[in-house]
Amino acid sequence: MVVYLVGAGPGDPDLVTLKAIKTLQKADVVVYDRLANEEILKYASGAGMIYVGKRAGAHSKKQEEINQILIEQGKKYDSVVRLKGGDPFVFGRGGEEILALQEEGIPVEIIPGVTSAIGVPTTVGLPVTHRGVATSFTVVTGHEDPTKSEKQVQWNYNADTIVILMGVGHLEENIKEIMKYKDPQTPVCVIEKGTTPDERIITGTLENITQKDINPPALVIIGPVVDVFKDIQNKKP
Amino acid sequence: MVVYLVGAGPGDPDLVTLKAIKTLQKADVVVYDRLANEEILKYASGAGMIYVGKRAGAHSKKQEEINQILIEQGKKYDSVVRLKGGDPFVFGRGGEEILALQEEGIPVEIIPGVTSAIGVPTTVGLPVTHRGVATSFTVVTGHEDPTKSEKQVQWNYNADTIVILMGVGHLEENIKEIMKYKDPQTPVCVIEKGTTPDERIITGTLENITQKDINPPALVIIGPVVDVFKDIQNKKP
Repeated sequence: MVVYLVGAGPGDPDLVTLKAIKTLQKADVVVYDRLANEEILKYASGAGMIYVGKRAGAHSKKQEEINQILIEQGKKYDSVVRLKGGDPFVFGRGGEEILALQEEGIPVEIIPGVTSAIGVPTTVGLPVTHRGVATSFTVVTGHEDPTKSEKQVQWNYNADTIVILMGVGHLEENIKEIMKYKDPQTPVCVIEKGTTPDERIITGTLENITQKDINPPALVIIGPVVDVFKDIQNKKP
Repeated sequence: MVVYLVGAGPGDPDLVTLKAIKTLQKADVVVYDRLANEEILKYASGAGMIYVGKRAGAHSKKQEEINQILIEQGKKYDSVVRLKGGDPFVFGRGGEEILALQEEGIPVEIIPGVTSAIGVPTTVGLPVTHRGVATSFTVVTGHEDPTKSEKQVQWNYNADTIVILMGVGHLEENIKEIMKYKDPQTPVCVIEKGTTPDERIITGTLENITQKDINPPALVIIGPVVDVFKDIQNKKP
């Protein structure tokens, strides 16, 4: 009995790692969330499938329920894959699942994935770091746990680039906060459904980005690297 | 003629993406740096190989020389792979290569990789984000371009987790800077040669980490998530 926490990458099924594929191939059961692309489930064609993500009109399972399902499956099978979009530790709550499984004596192995925070901008040609422009980047969730009594996200990040994951839901209030610390003219790029055929790119500034038509799921990138991206776009042969 | 900028991942050859493998398989020539693991070059068994990284006792090629090589190869061949450790845009100077190639009319496509900044801590069970502990992380280079007249890295990053790539060379002075902004007791984890058979993990605090035996290449992770990692380690079944 081993539970493998596996990152599924940002969406494009070819952006999954070889190790994830090999692990899916030997899985007895796969426990998965809503993925940007379910095509990678084909590698586990012999395995049982348990969906724990959101259903239309229904809430997703609570984290404790998911932990319970993982524990049950881990006790029953040799090889359980817990498949998550992106990387299991970038807002994936992988740490909580490990601790819950270990508590029950179930060993866990973790297989990283290409996080959409980096994989999505990289694919479109938006460098999160660029010599002379950005030597640091901060990745933050736009969707802070609303049950938290004290908000941890402060938005005064002073890295050169800010990448907001799950950025659409609270975009307006988050951008308002960021403008307390950054020039309203700072360039912003929003990438909807990155690395999928439905990808859409919207650019603007902190001041005007919320007036544009933006739909989830999307990633928000803030900082002067967005100008590097525009330069790369404009000079495409 | 297309030049593919391809991320090779953090070291483990199985942490390369399927897309990178497919691109290597159709490459006419591969231009590569020092990689954590050269095994993935096997996918391009039919291709010419051009090494542009460091040689023992010699400097690595300058970025302009590398750009020149890419332009020459791009004009000569249908499919050139520029292979880089990690992700091409996380301190990989990918943006500069794209702009130089486009200037010469050569189209570029970019294939993201698992950056060691995330892939290495994820693999060992160190979550860079964790509910109630870290809702943001900053990735920064420890090896700022020494020719820069004005230092861009300021070390006053206020994300919950800081990940320093290429962290060993200037570790002492960088930690001294970080201690201006963070508690000296803040936990630190150093991961040498992550995801390879020679991986080594060293933990400590901002105050004592530089007294330990640390060798490059290594990644430095700073913040309370290091305590989550220790908890996960201690509770392993």
